[in-house]
Amino acid sequence: MRISQLFTKTLREAPSGESSANARLLSRGGFVFKNMAGVWSMLPLGVKVLDKIRQIIREEMNAIGGQELHLNVLQDKKIWDKTDRWNIENVMYTWKDDNKDFGLGFTHEEVVAQIGSQHIHSYKDLPKFVYQIQTKFRKEARAQSGLLRTREFEMKDLYSLTRDEKELQEFYEKCAKAYSKIFERVALKAFRTKAHGGVFRVEGSEEFQVIAEVGEDTIYVCQSCGRATNKDVIEINENRCAYCKNDKLEEKRAIEVGNIFQLGTKFSEPLGLIYSDKKGNKQPIWMGSYGIGTGRVMAAVVEVHHDEQGIVWPNSVSPFLAHLVTINNQQSTINKRADQIYELLTKQGIEVLYDDRQDVSAGQKFADADLIGCPFRIVVSDKTGEKLEIKHRQEKQTSLKTFAQVVDLVSKI
Amino acid sequence: MRISQLFTKTLREAPSGESSANARLLSRGGFVFKNMAGVWSMLPLGVKVLDKIRQIIREEMNAIGGQELHLNVLQDKKIWDKTDRWNIENVMYTWKDDNKDFGLGFTHEEVVAQIGSQHIHSYKDLPKFVYQIQTKFRKEARAQSGLLRTREFEMKDLYSLTRDEKELQEFYEKCAKAYSKIFERVALKAFRTKAHGGVFRVEGSEEFQVIAEVGEDTIYVCQSCGRATNKDVIEINENRCAYCKNDKLEEKRAIEVGNIFQLGTKFSEPLGLIYSDKKGNKQPIWMGSYGIGTGRVMAAVVEVHHDEQGIVWPNSVSPFLAHLVTINNQQSTINKRADQIYELLTKQGIEVLYDDRQDVSAGQKFADADLIGCPFRIVVSDKTGEKLEIKHRQEKQTSLKTFAQVVDLVSKI
Repeated sequence: MRISQLFTKTLREAPSGESSANARLLSRGGFVFKNMAGVWSMLPLGVKVLDKIRQIIREEMNAIGGQELHLNVLQDKKIWDKTDRWNIENVMYTWKDDNKDFGLGFTHEEVVAQIGSQHIHSYKDLPKFVYQIQTKFRKEARAQSGLLRTREFEMKDLYSLTRDEKELQEFYEKCAKAYSKIFERVALKAFRTKAHGGVFRVEGSEEFQVIAEVGEDTIYVCQSCGRATNKDVIEINENRCAYCKNDKLEEKRAIEVGNIFQLGTKFSEPLGLIYSDKKGNKQPIWMGSYGIGTGRVMAAVVEVHHDEQGIVWPNSVSPFLAHLVTINNQQSTINKRADQIYELLTKQGIEVLYDDRQDVSAGQKFADADLIGCPFRIVVSDKTGEKLEIKHRQEKQTSLKTFAQVVDLVSKI
Repeated sequence: MRISQLFTKTLREAPSGESSANARLLSRGGFVFKNMAGVWSMLPLGVKVLDKIRQIIREEMNAIGGQELHLNVLQDKKIWDKTDRWNIENVMYTWKDDNKDFGLGFTHEEVVAQIGSQHIHSYKDLPKFVYQIQTKFRKEARAQSGLLRTREFEMKDLYSLTRDEKELQEFYEKCAKAYSKIFERVALKAFRTKAHGGVFRVEGSEEFQVIAEVGEDTIYVCQSCGRATNKDVIEINENRCAYCKNDKLEEKRAIEVGNIFQLGTKFSEPLGLIYSDKKGNKQPIWMGSYGIGTGRVMAAVVEVHHDEQGIVWPNSVSPFLAHLVTINNQQSTINKRADQIYELLTKQGIEVLYDDRQDVSAGQKFADADLIGCPFRIVVSDKTGEKLEIKHRQEKQTSLKTFAQVVDLVSKI
């Protein structure tokens, strides 16, 4: 992508009142736009990052048998009344129109149970795993911290439908492992954390927490087993690790990037999601649900991976791998060479953001490259001759390399 | 995908009150689920179709310079007040929560103009083209015809920002051509149709209309130039083609699958979307907007391509290319061979839906294959020996072919 054609520019100012690193850097870099408190748009650079996060999540969910669907945003009060969750804890946006109730989905256990009951009848039809990546909504009195606490957010939510508690627990563990892989792939160190279950109020519930000062959760990281316990449940556990009961714990602020719930038959029973077992007896289906906030993952990555100058994207989710800069002083030969390098790198399958602007200083271009944060900066100037100047975002040192060496360096990461 | 693992089954009954072919066949095939009037969920087979439609649209929008973004669903009344479109014509869902106004986006001209004004300042920054594929919402007193008239729907909406009327018209024409390509690729014959502009109330406005009895629009197809004129404007044109003024017109019912609008400066002026021209003078940006309903395209395809037995998917948007059926009579050798064929076809990159169910009759399997509607049905049975039985969905005749011949047949479409 040529920067001269990109929809956005970098900005000097972040939206007023937004002090978190993710809000400041993503806004200034042109990744996101704040529409109003707790509501953000994804601009083209942001969509590129989000697409990579989505793809990683899809791969790991498909690998454990997930099938993608896309459920309704507008909710039917009738099915939520069956579980008494219509507007529970003042989380759901609801209104009346023409005397009809409308609500915006913040989760889909009820809907999955309803649809499942139409398609699943026998033990032979189980287990089944479905997920979606969808925009959801929840009331937030205090929307804050950029993309971390919002009223509108995209999340991946998976639902497991299993025959019994054992099969639920097996999948729950499998999904927890898939979550660990996902967070590793996006370069987040996420602690598996015993939690309370929030609006779901279920026993078997864990979170994945990333340590960051801006985080709204307090967790206690166990120095023995490496897992953590959320403050909500640490007292119940008498200040001991909920997993290994060790008392060497470190208090940390953290961002919840994922959560997993063993729901049991809490939703299947009121919604009539039952199956016939081998003996022909009717049994309730055991459910689980498993969420990851995609925008929140993006924000957490920025909180963990940035410096004074801007974002330092991990390779796996960077909008582009290379940020190519031409410093031309109006010399058409330099520009032509940079154009060629852009074409050649692109042909090699390398995603390049190409700063081809004519009327912008080298200093401004370098500052923009640091702010946007792609892993490699490549420079074509009258000083680079037949070679290219390359620098890793995290290093100060530049070096001159041949085109082949540059391709090698950028491709092998 | 093995049918034994698929989340859905085929159903005998469509939702009550739904008589359109798209609602009946997509529901019975397990592509969609009706949550309530005008609100539908996409099930895994539906997502597969939708993904192909989205991909075709993305390719054609990228080819004309479109950059993908993802804008806010929850709307800020302040910017809509500037264009007097907050709840215009009772289209927008709006409500108050904690004394704050909320509305659900049904289009994004205001938002694009607002964001554009932050990033575009000079004639050098133009033209720019952005699009999204997003769930939108609009009040429908009479939600009907399955996925054709809904309250919640996915659409692709592109916005063009250009320097002047000429540049707008150039892109408008380019986009119209891209639309023709898209509809051709999804096997819809869409007539470019002069239209009124609806809630946008602009002069330069056209629709793409697909002839179908279930359609809610009446259009007049010109027997001379091959374009059409919407009933809304035919009277103004004194019963003549709006394009070539010919009076040999054929009245048809049609489904609007896309629309394109030359908006001019209608939105940029009130929202302050201006740029400095070469002389340094401030000028309003000329805008256009261009929509395609993805779910509506899916529904229109079904309306046009179906028979008594079920859907007849065009290759380009079929959830799978081949529907493999094992008729095993409990013979493990037949099942093993079918499993092998499934693996081998998949390895060839062919998308296969594999009916591996053990307790279902051949008749039921064939009926399901016809209902789901993939282009090729391939059978492994004790009668097929070393060969495979293959049949095109639109033909009655089956034939026995070698594996290599089957791969050749299925791959070359």
